[in-house]
Amino acid sequence: MIAVLKQGTTPAQIQHLVDWLKHMNLDVHISEGAEVTILGLIGDTSRVDMELLKSLEMVDSVKRVSEPFKQANRKFHPKETIIDVGGVRVGGGYFAMIAGPCSVESEEQIISVANAVKQSGANILRGGAFKPRTSPYAFQGMKGEGIRLLLEAKKATGMPIVTEIMNIATLDLFADVDIIQVGARNMQNFDLLKELGKTKKPILLKRGLANTIQELLMSAEYIMSEGNEQVILCERGIRTFETATRNTLDLSAVAVLHNLTHLPVVVDPSHATGVAGLVPPMACAAAASGADGIMVEVHNNPSCALCDGAQSLTPEQFDELNRKIQRIREVIA
Amino acid sequence: MIAVLKQGTTPAQIQHLVDWLKHMNLDVHISEGAEVTILGLIGDTSRVDMELLKSLEMVDSVKRVSEPFKQANRKFHPKETIIDVGGVRVGGGYFAMIAGPCSVESEEQIISVANAVKQSGANILRGGAFKPRTSPYAFQGMKGEGIRLLLEAKKATGMPIVTEIMNIATLDLFADVDIIQVGARNMQNFDLLKELGKTKKPILLKRGLANTIQELLMSAEYIMSEGNEQVILCERGIRTFETATRNTLDLSAVAVLHNLTHLPVVVDPSHATGVAGLVPPMACAAAASGADGIMVEVHNNPSCALCDGAQSLTPEQFDELNRKIQRIREVIA
Amino acid sequence: MIAVLKQGTTPAQIQHLVDWLKHMNLDVHISEGAEVTILGLIGDTSRVDMELLKSLEMVDSVKRVSEPFKQANRKFHPKETIIDVGGVRVGGGYFAMIAGPCSVESEEQIISVANAVKQSGANILRGGAFKPRTSPYAFQGMKGEGIRLLLEAKKATGMPIVTEIMNIATLDLFADVDIIQVGARNMQNFDLLKELGKTKKPILLKRGLANTIQELLMSAEYIMSEGNEQVILCERGIRTFETATRNTLDLSAVAVLHNLTHLPVVVDPSHATGVAGLVPPMACAAAASGADGIMVEVHNNPSCALCDGAQSLTPEQFDELNRKIQRIREVIA
Amino acid sequence: MIAVLKQGTTPAQIQHLVDWLKHMNLDVHISEGAEVTILGLIGDTSRVDMELLKSLEMVDSVKRVSEPFKQANRKFHPKETIIDVGGVRVGGGYFAMIAGPCSVESEEQIISVANAVKQSGANILRGGAFKPRTSPYAFQGMKGEGIRLLLEAKKATGMPIVTEIMNIATLDLFADVDIIQVGARNMQNFDLLKELGKTKKPILLKRGLANTIQELLMSAEYIMSEGNEQVILCERGIRTFETATRNTLDLSAVAVLHNLTHLPVVVDPSHATGVAGLVPPMACAAAASGADGIMVEVHNNPSCALCDGAQSLTPEQFDELNRKIQRIREVIA
Repeated sequence: MIAVLKQGTTPAQIQHLVDWLKHMNLDVHISEGAEVTILGLIGDTSRVDMELLKSLEMVDSVKRVSEPFKQANRKFHPKETIIDVGGVRVGGGYFAMIAGPCSVESEEQIISVANAVKQSGANILRGGAFKPRTSPYAFQGMKGEGIRLLLEAKKATGMPIVTEIMNIATLDLFADVDIIQVGARNMQNFDLLKELGKTKKPILLKRGLANTIQELLMSAEYIMSEGNEQVILCERGIRTFETATRNTLDLSAVAVLHNLTHLPVVVDPSHATGVAGLVPPMACAAAASGADGIMVEVHNNPSCALCDGAQSLTPEQFDELNRKIQRIREVIA
Repeated sequence: MIAVLKQGTTPAQIQHLVDWLKHMNLDVHISEGAEVTILGLIGDTSRVDMELLKSLEMVDSVKRVSEPFKQANRKFHPKETIIDVGGVRVGGGYFAMIAGPCSVESEEQIISVANAVKQSGANILRGGAFKPRTSPYAFQGMKGEGIRLLLEAKKATGMPIVTEIMNIATLDLFADVDIIQVGARNMQNFDLLKELGKTKKPILLKRGLANTIQELLMSAEYIMSEGNEQVILCERGIRTFETATRNTLDLSAVAVLHNLTHLPVVVDPSHATGVAGLVPPMACAAAASGADGIMVEVHNNPSCALCDGAQSLTPEQFDELNRKIQRIREVIA
Repeated sequence: MIAVLKQGTTPAQIQHLVDWLKHMNLDVHISEGAEVTILGLIGDTSRVDMELLKSLEMVDSVKRVSEPFKQANRKFHPKETIIDVGGVRVGGGYFAMIAGPCSVESEEQIISVANAVKQSGANILRGGAFKPRTSPYAFQGMKGEGIRLLLEAKKATGMPIVTEIMNIATLDLFADVDIIQVGARNMQNFDLLKELGKTKKPILLKRGLANTIQELLMSAEYIMSEGNEQVILCERGIRTFETATRNTLDLSAVAVLHNLTHLPVVVDPSHATGVAGLVPPMACAAAASGADGIMVEVHNNPSCALCDGAQSLTPEQFDELNRKIQRIREVIA
Repeated sequence: MIAVLKQGTTPAQIQHLVDWLKHMNLDVHISEGAEVTILGLIGDTSRVDMELLKSLEMVDSVKRVSEPFKQANRKFHPKETIIDVGGVRVGGGYFAMIAGPCSVESEEQIISVANAVKQSGANILRGGAFKPRTSPYAFQGMKGEGIRLLLEAKKATGMPIVTEIMNIATLDLFADVDIIQVGARNMQNFDLLKELGKTKKPILLKRGLANTIQELLMSAEYIMSEGNEQVILCERGIRTFETATRNTLDLSAVAVLHNLTHLPVVVDPSHATGVAGLVPPMACAAAASGADGIMVEVHNNPSCALCDGAQSLTPEQFDELNRKIQRIREVIA
């Protein structure tokens, strides 16, 4: 970590700061120039509060040289992590084709969608049981019963399942769930992350709407620092000024993450765009950008004109998408 | 709620949609124009999933006519809410002067700061016991012991206290806390909000970094819908492209919120700017914009050159700021 | 266009507003509901100032039903526009492979890069002569001499060229340029757009850093409304809170634009990401998203270790990228 | 300027880079640490292309130690600049109270508004003659005739005038205008800035919707570097995800700018918020934040119910606002 001091900082002030830094078990290397004094901090700087340091009157700016994440860091773990999800591998060349309905609604629904997406190439089943909703008056999901139905669909199809947790108090209900999903709104619910770090289950961690790539990695680090290294990262759109799409899908995050970390990265184009017609081109683009998987919504009601336009694909559209994605993966391999 | 249908929508599709909406206990008023068909939905539209409706193929756009928040809505509750915080009133002409250190560090520290800020006009003491930190390796606060020390400072000074909760499992520790704070990262931790809605305590709800004003009100609605109407809203900066300040303080939110809701609105310029030198002008601006209070960090270590530049004010700076704010409040009254 | 009036608007106010709208040659259809009154405006609403209407005290919100762009609108021109650029076609199934150096630096440089990229599949040569720079002290390009050298490279290779204009006073210098580029900072330099609309040349219009997709189309409309229909749109990243990449490449804009307009859409991953290593995955993603072309920087100095890391690709990298893109285009065709 | 090199950079690569930097007349100070090598660049670094340097493969990050703006920099010019606008001073304790209609519409209109705002304390008259409009089909202003009418109003009231230029070709029309305004969309129209730098007139430079504070100062530098030091900066809201206001007024920019530059800073709450009801609280907040002036829209049609709600104030509202602002200025003095 490097701290650039402002011009006019007195030797006494510098000494004061250096003493404080040494007190945190850091070595400090001082480089005094004509214009500027630079402190190089050596040691375990991941514990240094960069914001505090930056806010000191005498400090012009602070720059991390080593990333503040360790276990998620590709530098210390160059080989790609491959996560085993109930027999399905994700990462390091293995592609997750995660599909299913937005919410679990009934046994018939979830089993019929599960069968349809399995036939079209999905290898993991998604479905919401606990639904985070902006309004307290909106449908909040089938909760425990929804998980039970997902497990029925798993039994019927053999596909591993992924579903979202919102509250650590419900963790027992996830005992047979294959991947526990942390939603975008909970990406910095640090207590939840720590508890999930104590489980032995793969965690699918979605990027928050206004969170940087580095913050996503720091949240992965919360899980990993408690002993659970099975984290799958998920890009699902960030909040920007553009309103033509629900969020702005940041596909460059895939390539940036692959440089920084060994963890697999999947992309959710359904929630990012909010419009079914944009899902196939964005899913293809995600595959072309090098993603380790996609996660899309597929509904089970081809006869219902109403649902046709939602952000969910029909099984037929998913089938066609799957074939394109497999071919794109061959191109970029 | 108004739904504008796309050109070319067939009568059968419209009938399908209308049936579905009526199924949700809504009356539907159809207005067919040359270019466009408009549906007016009448009834309790707060339960309608606007995102789903918008994503239907036949729907061009959806527009709420009535706001989706009810209990927080000034239309249904025109008189400003005044919240009693251990004898100190906030809102409706009463100004909260909330001050204290970023984190509780020791009994001596918190009591000395408490005495200093009380003397300079603070009427509520702040101090962090549970600290949400981006990094799992950073100091996470004194936790339960921090709350105990805050209660000592309350006893010593008579000032009510506000401190942040991160996990509903720790609620018992907040039994004697006067205001429970929900931090920006937890603004959409809906399960936490619901549990706090079941308490009888004032809640200080901070706006999330990437949350709209309407989402802030919907989160207040989560608390209020469970029976707790004592919500204080807090603007603390949003995330934008500008990097000269830690966040961009959105002071127009104060005036917008006063139009939409009867709840009090306070402003935290310390976290928004991240730099002590910007706190006094932004605190004065907040008062001039009509805020019902400010929340600022004040440290206890005037002799420590190190801390002088952090985002915390010295007690002397706070004293001067307090006097300016009182005079500005007279001007805009 | 639909205007929703606030509750409590008096009949006299409504009449006043209706008279004003009729004065603008609009028919007004009034729909009075229990909660709300809606005005449907029929006629040429592209001249109505939506911002002004929205800011009226009695108006709750305004919603366009028909898009404010006409000539760029796919509704009125369903067939894709194919633009002929000196014999090279762009759009409607024809892919523009635009490559070249960031700036023209010398005759030797531009001709050697031009030859290299042509051999690797480029069909249009790019190169900056006038360079918009944040700082007045930075290199501003070779200007007229740069254009002369581009024309030499065109002569040597037969490739059409594209280069940026910053000031309408220099238009004469562009007489033999095949595509005139309008940079992101000038996307709303309306006087420049109007002048370019009077030329007969293809215009490559880059999206501004903070401009919406609709604003981009309105700027295309400025050019088209003056008689020049040969506009190529270019997505090159928008400004967001994320700092890991220079800008955030918004690839969903490609699919959104293809729905809204018949104009071709190309993508510039070099400027969007600012890092060479991210260019190939993002260029592949752009092709997979359905873009009608890409525009990338390629340098000419494989022996210079210095330049290897800039946002420019080596000719070898470009060659490999080109082959992948051609195969991806077959997959999504 | 400091460049941090990546681990693993070879001595030959470092030498290569150092040679290149020395070639630009910079002294280079090399500091090799265990983890990292740091280059300190000494000399006129304002000409160094930071983006290029940052994009080199071997460079981890680049940090400016001295700001890239010189003439606008408070470090080299500690005393506040006071600008004389036709006898009215702005900056250094002198407050600009700029008011007038959005657009000049007729001689009667502009003179009646001018008289009204003068009586209520305005000292500079604003009014749009050339109007930048998103749509080519919207009213584009009265142009030259609008300027003529503004000059009539100046004659009638003695007030200096400010109006916007969009195209350098119209400069002659501004011969008797007191302040030439550069609009947000033209903030980085560098050729326009350079031409204005050759005039002797005060320039009011508005911050672009997506431009950083530093970019605003660099655009001021474009004007100043050509010899015109009379630049007034104007904060008018930035583009963010929030849609409750037209833009997000960034009042902390006022305090940040006052730290960085000696130039005066005014605030335009009318365009930032887009709603008349928000203008007075935001104008008061601007004054409390230390702004050197405000710029607000005032209309002339108190009898016209239609206009009452636009972003313009009535003369009565402006009168009341002016009195509050004068008192707030006494408080913060």
